[in-house]
Amino acid sequence: MANFLRSYIKPSEIMLFKDEKTGLFTDLYELTMAQGYFFSGKQSDKATFEYFFRNNPFQGGFTVFAGLADFLDLLVEFSFSNSDLQYLSHQGFKKEFLAFLADFRFAGNISSVKEGELVFPYEPVVKVEGNILECQLIESMLLNILNFESLIATKAYRIKLAAGGRPFSDFGMRRAQGLAAIHASRAAVIGGASSTSNVLAGKIFGIPVAGTQAHSWIQSFDTELEAFRTYAKIHPENTTLLIDTYDTLKSGVPNAIILAKEMEQQGAELKAIRLDSGDMAYLSRHARKMLDDAGLQSVKIVASNQLNEYIINTLLKDQNAAIDIFGVGTEMVTGKPDAALDGVYKLVCLNETPRMKFSENTEKTTLPGKKQLVRYFDTEGQFFRDGILLADENPLETDMIYHPFYPEKYTSLSHLRCENLLSEVVAEGQILQVNRDLITIHNYLLTRAACLPAEHKRFFSPHIYKMGISQKLMNLRNELSKKYNH
Amino acid sequence: MANFLRSYIKPSEIMLFKDEKTGLFTDLYELTMAQGYFFSGKQSDKATFEYFFRNNPFQGGFTVFAGLADFLDLLVEFSFSNSDLQYLSHQGFKKEFLAFLADFRFAGNISSVKEGELVFPYEPVVKVEGNILECQLIESMLLNILNFESLIATKAYRIKLAAGGRPFSDFGMRRAQGLAAIHASRAAVIGGASSTSNVLAGKIFGIPVAGTQAHSWIQSFDTELEAFRTYAKIHPENTTLLIDTYDTLKSGVPNAIILAKEMEQQGAELKAIRLDSGDMAYLSRHARKMLDDAGLQSVKIVASNQLNEYIINTLLKDQNAAIDIFGVGTEMVTGKPDAALDGVYKLVCLNETPRMKFSENTEKTTLPGKKQLVRYFDTEGQFFRDGILLADENPLETDMIYHPFYPEKYTSLSHLRCENLLSEVVAEGQILQVNRDLITIHNYLLTRAACLPAEHKRFFSPHIYKMGISQKLMNLRNELSKKYNH
Repeated sequence: MANFLRSYIKPSEIMLFKDEKTGLFTDLYELTMAQGYFFSGKQSDKATFEYFFRNNPFQGGFTVFAGLADFLDLLVEFSFSNSDLQYLSHQGFKKEFLAFLADFRFAGNISSVKEGELVFPYEPVVKVEGNILECQLIESMLLNILNFESLIATKAYRIKLAAGGRPFSDFGMRRAQGLAAIHASRAAVIGGASSTSNVLAGKIFGIPVAGTQAHSWIQSFDTELEAFRTYAKIHPENTTLLIDTYDTLKSGVPNAIILAKEMEQQGAELKAIRLDSGDMAYLSRHARKMLDDAGLQSVKIVASNQLNEYIINTLLKDQNAAIDIFGVGTEMVTGKPDAALDGVYKLVCLNETPRMKFSENTEKTTLPGKKQLVRYFDTEGQFFRDGILLADENPLETDMIYHPFYPEKYTSLSHLRCENLLSEVVAEGQILQVNRDLITIHNYLLTRAACLPAEHKRFFSPHIYKMGISQKLMNLRNELSKKYNH
Repeated sequence: MANFLRSYIKPSEIMLFKDEKTGLFTDLYELTMAQGYFFSGKQSDKATFEYFFRNNPFQGGFTVFAGLADFLDLLVEFSFSNSDLQYLSHQGFKKEFLAFLADFRFAGNISSVKEGELVFPYEPVVKVEGNILECQLIESMLLNILNFESLIATKAYRIKLAAGGRPFSDFGMRRAQGLAAIHASRAAVIGGASSTSNVLAGKIFGIPVAGTQAHSWIQSFDTELEAFRTYAKIHPENTTLLIDTYDTLKSGVPNAIILAKEMEQQGAELKAIRLDSGDMAYLSRHARKMLDDAGLQSVKIVASNQLNEYIINTLLKDQNAAIDIFGVGTEMVTGKPDAALDGVYKLVCLNETPRMKFSENTEKTTLPGKKQLVRYFDTEGQFFRDGILLADENPLETDMIYHPFYPEKYTSLSHLRCENLLSEVVAEGQILQVNRDLITIHNYLLTRAACLPAEHKRFFSPHIYKMGISQKLMNLRNELSKKYNH
C-alpha cells in the first residue's frame, strides 16, 4: 500500500513527504482549535461529542450505519510525522504545541452502534469521550469516513431491496470519486452487493471479484463469434458474454447461442450473457426467449447500464424484465443523487456540564448532555420506537418518550423490551474487538431489517420511524434554552 | 503516506498486504481480458484507445479537464507486487500470465489535452497507443482519476463564475467521499478555490490551507465573548469568528464588535466573521451594517452552509447579500448533483484498422479511427468550433466540419487560426514534462475561459459549443456502419 498512495504525490516530493500519518487528514480548524485549547489551559477539560445526522439519505426511511472499522483503523494511525510537524510549523503553529503533537495519540473512549445497524435522524450513533483537544482533532476524519460509508451502504441496501433475491455486483470503480472507490466497494458489500469489479478492494477486504470482458475485447476480433470463442476457450469455467457490441438480438444473442452449443459439446457451460445498452426489459425478454428456445434455460442474463434502485424496481415489477443478475455502478458507489450523508459531530458535555448549540435554523439546534440510544421492540419483536435518554437514566424505567420538537406528541413505552444500541469500541485509546467480516456485518443488517416494518423501507414517501426523547432530556434542553434566552 | 493507506487495511493483514502496487487499482475484467489477449496471441497487436465523455456535467456548457498529472503519477507505479500476483493466482489467473505481469510496465504513448483546458462532449481528450494488452490494463484507473477530477474542477469553476471576484475556500473534507477528499481539493483549486480546509491535500499539493474555529470552540467557554477573546489572543494574526452559535445578530455580531475594538487597541485587527446558518442575505446585510456603524468596514464577512453556484449566484445578484468570501463544502467536492463525469475509453484502431462500437443507443456509437482534436478560433480570437479529424488530415486544409449526427449541418473553417489540443505526455512509457503547478493550471483555465463566449458559460440552458467531424471521418464511419449492416 505504501507505493499506492505515494504515487499520488509529485515525484519530486516523494522523498520529502514519504511519511504522512493520518493526523493531517483533517480540516485545518481542528488543529487551530486544538492549539487554542492547548494554550488556554483547556487541554484536560473532559468533553463528550456525539455523531448524528439530520436526514436519511435518498428521502428514504432508514440509514445503514457503516465505516466504523475503517475509522478505527485510521484512528490507530492518528499521529504526526516529523515532516507533518515541519509542515505545520510552516503554517504558523507554535513550537510548544507541535512538541505536544509529536507524541499525540487519541486516548479517549468511543461508543458506537454496530456496523450494519439501522439508524435514524438525530440519534447519537457514535459517542466520543476524552479531553476536548483529542476529541476535537479526530472530528473531520470520523465524519469523512462514517458519512461516506453509511451513505453507500444505505444505497446498496436499497438496491438489494429492489433486486429481490437477485444478486448484484459493484461495477462502479471507473466512475467512483477517485480513491473513494476503495471504501465504496466495502460499503456496497455491507449493503448487499455480492461481488465487486474493484480488484484492490477485493484484495484488501476479501470481497469476491467479478468481471469478464468489455466491448474492446469484442472489437479486437474480426467477428463477434471469434471474440466469444476465444474468450470461452481461455476462461471456460467463467464465461459471461457481452452481447451488445454490434446488435444485441440480431448478432449478440445468436452468436452466444452458437457458442453455448459448442461449449456444451466440450462439456463446458456458458454461464451468462450481459446486456449493457438499449431497453433492458425488451431486450432481456427477447434474449430469454431465444435462449430458452435453444434449450439454454441455464444461461443467466446480466444487465448493467446506469442502474439504480428505482430502475431495477420498475424493470422487475412493472416491465417483466428477464434479468437474473445486476451490475450496478456509478449511482451506487457515489450515492447519487445525494452525494453525502449530512452527519455532524457536536459537543454535548464539557466537564460534566451539558452544552448545547443553538442555531438560526431550529433543526440545527442540538440535544444537550451525554446520552444513550435505546431501541424499544413491540410484542412481535418489531422495532417500535427509538428513545434518546440521558446517559444516567434507566431505559426500563422510562415510561414515555416525546417528539423532539413537538412535546405534545408522546408515546408510552411501559413493559417493552429494549436494547441499548451503543457499545464501547475504544477504551482509553485501545480498540476493542469489533466485527470486521463483511458478510457477518451484512447478515446483521438483514436481521435488523427483518424487524423494521415494511412501510419504512419503501422508496416513495416512506413512513417515518419514530424517535423520541425522554422527559429528563427535554427538561434539560428547555432549561438551557431559557438560559440563553431562546 | 505509507502508513496512511495502510491503516485502511485490517491490522491482521498489514503484513500480508503491505506492498500493493497500483496494478490492482482496476476492474477485474481488464485483467481477464489481458489474460485473454496474452493467450490468444494478441499481446503485440497495436491499439489506439481514446478517452471522451458524452455530456458536460451539471447540464452546463463546458467541462474543465483535470487529473492528468495524478493519473500519470499512478501510471508510473502501475505494476504488480508479489502479494498482488499471489492474490491473482488465488483468483484463477494462470501461471504464464502472472509471470508476464510480474515484469509489466506500461510502455506505450499517451497524448492529452492540458489540465485546465475547456473540453466538450465526444472530443478525444486523451489518446492512448500501445499494445492492446497494456492499453486495456490501464483503462479503469485512467477513467477513475480523470472522470473525478474533471467533474470537481468543472464544479469549482462554476462556483468561481458565480462568486465573481470574491474568493472561495474548499471546506468539503468532512463530507467528501472518503479518500476522494485528497484529489477533490486539488481539482477544486484547478477550478478556482483559493484555499482548502484539508490539511493533507494542502501539504501534498502545496495548496494554501484555511480554517479557524467551529461551534464546539465557542461552546467550550462559558460565554461567546470569552471564546472570541481567547481565540484572538492565541491567533491574533488570523482571527475569523464564527458568530451563529447562540444568536447571530443579538449575540454573535455584538460580541465580535466588542472584540474587534479590543483588538484595535492592541494593534491587531479582526479579519472576518463567519455566518454558518440562517438566511445569508438578511443576516449578512444586517451584520455588515452593524460592523460599518461601528467603524469596522475592514472586517470581512464569510458565509458557509450548503452553498453551490446557484445559491451564490442568487445571493449576490438577486438578494444583495453582503458576503466577501465563501466557504464551499459538500456540493463542490462531490460534484453534486451529478456525482460522476460519464467519461469512457474506447478502442478506435487495431493494427492500423479503424474499429467502431455500435450500440442499441445511437449516442453510444463511437467515432472510429485515430483522431486529432483541433480548435478553430474566430477573427476576434474566441473559440469558434472544435473539429475532430482523422490523425493524418491537415487541419489547415480542412474546409468543412459536419455535425456528428446530422451531416446536413456543417460549417466552413476556411482561413481560421487553429490549435491542435492534444500533445504527447508519455512516450514509450516515459512521462514527459507536464504542468503540475495548480496556480499555473488555473491561470491556463482562465485564459481559455476568456476565449469561450459568455453564452456557453451560463448555468441555465447554455448555448451548445459546436464540435464537428471532418468529411473523411464521416466517410469512414459510414463505411464501417454499412459493413456491419447498420
